[in-house]
Amino acid sequence: MSARLYLDWNASAPLRPEARAAMIAALDLVGNASSIHAEGRAVRGLIERARAQVSAALGADGADIVFTSGATEAAALAHAGRDLACAGIEHDAVAAWCRAALTTGRDGAVAVADPAGSSLQLANSETGIVQDLPEGLAVSDLTQAFGKLPLAFNWLGCAMGLVSAHKLGGPKGIGALALRRGLDVAAQIKGGGQEMGRRAGTENVVGIAGFGAAAEAAALDLANGVWDEVAEIRNLLESALEDACPGIMLVSKGLPRLPNTLSLIAPGWKGETQVMAMDLQGFAVSAGSACSSGKVTSSRVLRAMGYSEAEAGAALRVSIGPGVTKEDALRFAAAYGRAFKRAGERMKQAGADLPR
Amino acid sequence: MSARLYLDWNASAPLRPEARAAMIAALDLVGNASSIHAEGRAVRGLIERARAQVSAALGADGADIVFTSGATEAAALAHAGRDLACAGIEHDAVAAWCRAALTTGRDGAVAVADPAGSSLQLANSETGIVQDLPEGLAVSDLTQAFGKLPLAFNWLGCAMGLVSAHKLGGPKGIGALALRRGLDVAAQIKGGGQEMGRRAGTENVVGIAGFGAAAEAAALDLANGVWDEVAEIRNLLESALEDACPGIMLVSKGLPRLPNTLSLIAPGWKGETQVMAMDLQGFAVSAGSACSSGKVTSSRVLRAMGYSEAEAGAALRVSIGPGVTKEDALRFAAAYGRAFKRAGERMKQAGADLPR
Repeated sequence: MSARLYLDWNASAPLRPEARAAMIAALDLVGNASSIHAEGRAVRGLIERARAQVSAALGADGADIVFTSGATEAAALAHAGRDLACAGIEHDAVAAWCRAALTTGRDGAVAVADPAGSSLQLANSETGIVQDLPEGLAVSDLTQAFGKLPLAFNWLGCAMGLVSAHKLGGPKGIGALALRRGLDVAAQIKGGGQEMGRRAGTENVVGIAGFGAAAEAAALDLANGVWDEVAEIRNLLESALEDACPGIMLVSKGLPRLPNTLSLIAPGWKGETQVMAMDLQGFAVSAGSACSSGKVTSSRVLRAMGYSEAEAGAALRVSIGPGVTKEDALRFAAAYGRAFKRAGERMKQAGADLPR
Repeated sequence: MSARLYLDWNASAPLRPEARAAMIAALDLVGNASSIHAEGRAVRGLIERARAQVSAALGADGADIVFTSGATEAAALAHAGRDLACAGIEHDAVAAWCRAALTTGRDGAVAVADPAGSSLQLANSETGIVQDLPEGLAVSDLTQAFGKLPLAFNWLGCAMGLVSAHKLGGPKGIGALALRRGLDVAAQIKGGGQEMGRRAGTENVVGIAGFGAAAEAAALDLANGVWDEVAEIRNLLESALEDACPGIMLVSKGLPRLPNTLSLIAPGWKGETQVMAMDLQGFAVSAGSACSSGKVTSSRVLRAMGYSEAEAGAALRVSIGPGVTKEDALRFAAAYGRAFKRAGERMKQAGADLPR
């Protein structure tokens, strides 16, 4: 029996060794960063070094980086009370705060009439599709793009950006809001003066250390072309799946997208069933965004793009990363192809047209 | 030169070995707890085990435990939009949301007329003074008491309780809100359905693992009488300081209080100066609550108890824990005594009555 293969990097990426080492080193720092004694100052120093690492990796020199418990909290800080417009393809953490007023094309592109009143993601978690951000945009969710695409916050044209550590190989439960210099947000978690008054509470030191180290390592990987190789393997996987599974639709093929993400629709075969079938075969993949506590329904993202309820309910996301090999990709394609065939045969017996 | 001695446990306690081990083990869990595949379910299992550990240690069987990024976020969840009354001795994270309508006696005791409309801490971070909580209390900040005093949330008489991991030997940046069964709070961080819809965002898995292990170990220590020994050493330290420093006032001596906390006023000698003098000698102590990003002013807690501005500005907190020895305590008392004497001599030359 082969080892399990994790192909759900957009839900959460494996921890980078650099992040692991930085976190273990941070475990032994005893102080509270708000204390003025040597132990407190040591923790403060670690937090500020990590902030510089994240800022450099994000191309956000001079912008403010406010550490939060993740991109979801950063989204709350950026959006609350602002009544911004967004499209149906945004993550729940953004959509929860916005008017769903922007339309999305079949190609995933969102039309933004009023950038200053809008929030628009840079890359989609389910399809990988990358937006062309308009200048003057209020907020952009950079969570999926950060670490996978070369980008500089200072040149993206948005005033605020949301990022998360665990999508680029840092720990889960830490993220940040990037703020263009001169902007401010009202604290939602109040009390102490941490994070320049924008976010009270004793800092998640171990998480912050891991985020800094992961961001730095991710930037280095990007510069070294690591994600170009990932894209090649993703493309190979896409071709292999096309060959093995007649009738599947590849949602984002040929569109500007993340190098690691593949989104397909196998008409008639429920996404949730696909995920469970592949899980039993030793593969971790996803039917959509993971962030809804086990809730699996049809993909809101695909419906916003104009796919039918049935199509959006038959979607599968495969998201890979560095270290996933050609052989891994082909092993998955073969297993998925067999399952697809079996599903088709069951469908045939049941008298339907398509795998179920 | 002796090793540094950390006597600021109320600001942040050293990480327990059990928490360290649990955190390192959790680093290798790759999944997102909201994913339905095996990797996701493994993470979910770890989170739920930790929730059970925290619940058991807190005596909160049947209550809901909502993991947050710390007690400060738990305070926001518990207090926002409720206009509860509190006393001047509450932590900034509670005071930020409440009307400062309750009065505090010279003995630190708070009079509560309307428990259902009030928030009252169980133990104070600066003085260690423990309150007699009235039945039917809306919220109690249990942060300093949890792990140091035997307590059961279910028997405290409060509807909601705030706790933090790093005060009992868990990691910084993770805490929880305990909710009596049947109560609810509106999510402030929205998006996914995590934490039963009360707190969205991918969970801080490493922090949660550390919190669970630390809470379990802390409960065991309590049951084994470890904090009785801590109280003996604190009392010894208090006596030694009284002998070495004529004229100091011991704020909470003889009052119901935490076993590890000592609060003194050295009239005329600024608390901040004391902290810095002792820091240079190798001791980490505090002039008050650490949670205000290096801000050191006179203690708001002591002023609420009726001490003068000058007295509250001359306060020192020493907070210890298991592992701090009799010898450590006496070493600190001797060093503090010498510094106190030098400060007194400088004061004499300057023609004042008291050390400065």
